[in-house]
Amino acid sequence: MSKRRISIQDIARRAGVAHTTVSRALRDNPSISPKVREEIKQLAQEMGYVPNGIAQSLQNQRTNTIGVVVTSIADPFFAEVVEGIEKIAQAAGLSVLLSASHQDVEREIAAINNFHRRRVDGIIVADSHISKQHLQQIAEIAVPTVLLNSQTEELAQFQFVSIDNLLGAQLAVEHLIQLKHTAIGYIGVSNRTRSNQQRLEGYRTALIAANLPQNSDWVAISKAEYTTTSDVDTGLQMLSGLINAGVTSIFCYNDMVAIGALLACQKLSISVPQELSLVGFDDIALARYVTPSLTTVRQPMLEMGCCAAQMLLDLLQEKSVENRVLSPFLVAGGSSRQI
Amino acid sequence: MSKRRISIQDIARRAGVAHTTVSRALRDNPSISPKVREEIKQLAQEMGYVPNGIAQSLQNQRTNTIGVVVTSIADPFFAEVVEGIEKIAQAAGLSVLLSASHQDVEREIAAINNFHRRRVDGIIVADSHISKQHLQQIAEIAVPTVLLNSQTEELAQFQFVSIDNLLGAQLAVEHLIQLKHTAIGYIGVSNRTRSNQQRLEGYRTALIAANLPQNSDWVAISKAEYTTTSDVDTGLQMLSGLINAGVTSIFCYNDMVAIGALLACQKLSISVPQELSLVGFDDIALARYVTPSLTTVRQPMLEMGCCAAQMLLDLLQEKSVENRVLSPFLVAGGSSRQI
Repeated sequence: MSKRRISIQDIARRAGVAHTTVSRALRDNPSISPKVREEIKQLAQEMGYVPNGIAQSLQNQRTNTIGVVVTSIADPFFAEVVEGIEKIAQAAGLSVLLSASHQDVEREIAAINNFHRRRVDGIIVADSHISKQHLQQIAEIAVPTVLLNSQTEELAQFQFVSIDNLLGAQLAVEHLIQLKHTAIGYIGVSNRTRSNQQRLEGYRTALIAANLPQNSDWVAISKAEYTTTSDVDTGLQMLSGLINAGVTSIFCYNDMVAIGALLACQKLSISVPQELSLVGFDDIALARYVTPSLTTVRQPMLEMGCCAAQMLLDLLQEKSVENRVLSPFLVAGGSSRQI
Repeated sequence: MSKRRISIQDIARRAGVAHTTVSRALRDNPSISPKVREEIKQLAQEMGYVPNGIAQSLQNQRTNTIGVVVTSIADPFFAEVVEGIEKIAQAAGLSVLLSASHQDVEREIAAINNFHRRRVDGIIVADSHISKQHLQQIAEIAVPTVLLNSQTEELAQFQFVSIDNLLGAQLAVEHLIQLKHTAIGYIGVSNRTRSNQQRLEGYRTALIAANLPQNSDWVAISKAEYTTTSDVDTGLQMLSGLINAGVTSIFCYNDMVAIGALLACQKLSISVPQELSLVGFDDIALARYVTPSLTTVRQPMLEMGCCAAQMLLDLLQEKSVENRVLSPFLVAGGSSRQI
């Protein structure tokens, strides 16, 4: 298990040169002739030499690695975001390391500090819950950091990429209004404060614009903590309350909540879309695998990941970058229809 | 963005002591009095000092971090496995860093080497595609490494945790035989060589044991490369061939393949389970969200993750460890019924 690591000294001994020669050759130092550099690199490879990344990092300060903090890898939303990040990073020769915060701000801060200590070149934090009050705990973030869909206010220290939640919610509700629905509900989650607030606001804005009634019994916000299945549970638990309050359609915080609502409908023998229309948010792959497929608001997840990674690359090259707010769009599925 | 990092020197200057005193105090060196150690740590915290993890690692050799290589975070199977790994790691005070290989052996090797360079304390590789021929490229793995569901032969260098694929496939096919099916098909994937081979073998063993016919047209192995949606596509594309060959039930390589087959049935207006029974493998959360819910063979994913992480902790403490082959079990859902 613990075979000894080949060292610079081992290579120097084999090559019959000083270890400083080997060390310089491996770092392409021009004081060593190209021919000797090539021979030594060849020998190092044959001997199975792995550079000590930590010592090397101290010298050149770059680790060619970016750190990404997501809330959970069990959330399919992040799978696509990370695919976008990896795509850009790989093309630029950077490795991506992931860490999960589970929506716990202490774990998020620990993950950021850990990446910082490992000297990653840059950090992307998805669905961040850090706010001004936590900035002291993140000590001195001396590396470029990009936030993706921050759940707190936008912080001046960081660049960001986010989705226009207000617009997305309006698109969802306007779609239901076009289908002649007038009793439209909303199922939300309190553990993603900011995006939930913005989607609720978009829902209300669309109702007001169409002169449609609002009813506090048509809005249910789950107080559940974030777990792998909590969004599905939210949909499952909140559905009957809204049905009893007389809604004919529901805009759900995201697709997982909508899938929970769909499962509740199956248990209660409520036909979707004949008796109830459902609209989700995100357009995760899963939205197409359930029956009926979901009408949803697509977040361009891949593009958001690419965008955050490109922003980080630009920051690393000290280019100026601009924050981005991307626009979502409606994807019609089988879960909504005219009343 | 690039506020200067607080250094040991800064703290020393403020405290009016030598920088070696600060450095020793922060590392709890007993040559410094407990009172001074406490005062210096307090000051360091007030000034927002973040230890340089890289330099520190060179001294104490431990980074309290484990590296995990998965094929993709888009695969829901790994979400649960990683949850198990994180659970054990967090309790032991270790951070988990993830990296994705996308079933590309070169990226897998690069991820392992990168973790090695970053000096993680241990590595877990899920669904590994490395075989003896690649061992040279992984140079000198001087850290404990555990393989989880290796796709190649078990390598003497590494400890492993795996699932009994042969047993799982037998359970699936025996379930269909109990439901009086006699024309039973298999849809597999060639990009996970070993587990596919073992599940195919389990399928055949169960048929032989029951004296049931085999038919080469009842077995379809996809040659697709691994992508986020390739398993679903496999199910979608392979279904009609087996239906035309007269099967009344199909055992699928995993749940994603079964979901693809289910979607194909919807397109072709084939009722599941009335006209066709389907059995998956894994029991991902998704298996319960589709209609009908899937009958499947459960891999204890959380337990496998816990088990691999515990094995790694034991290796780090130089305890002796034993390889583990866990047993799957059948979970009856709505997608299978008596013929």
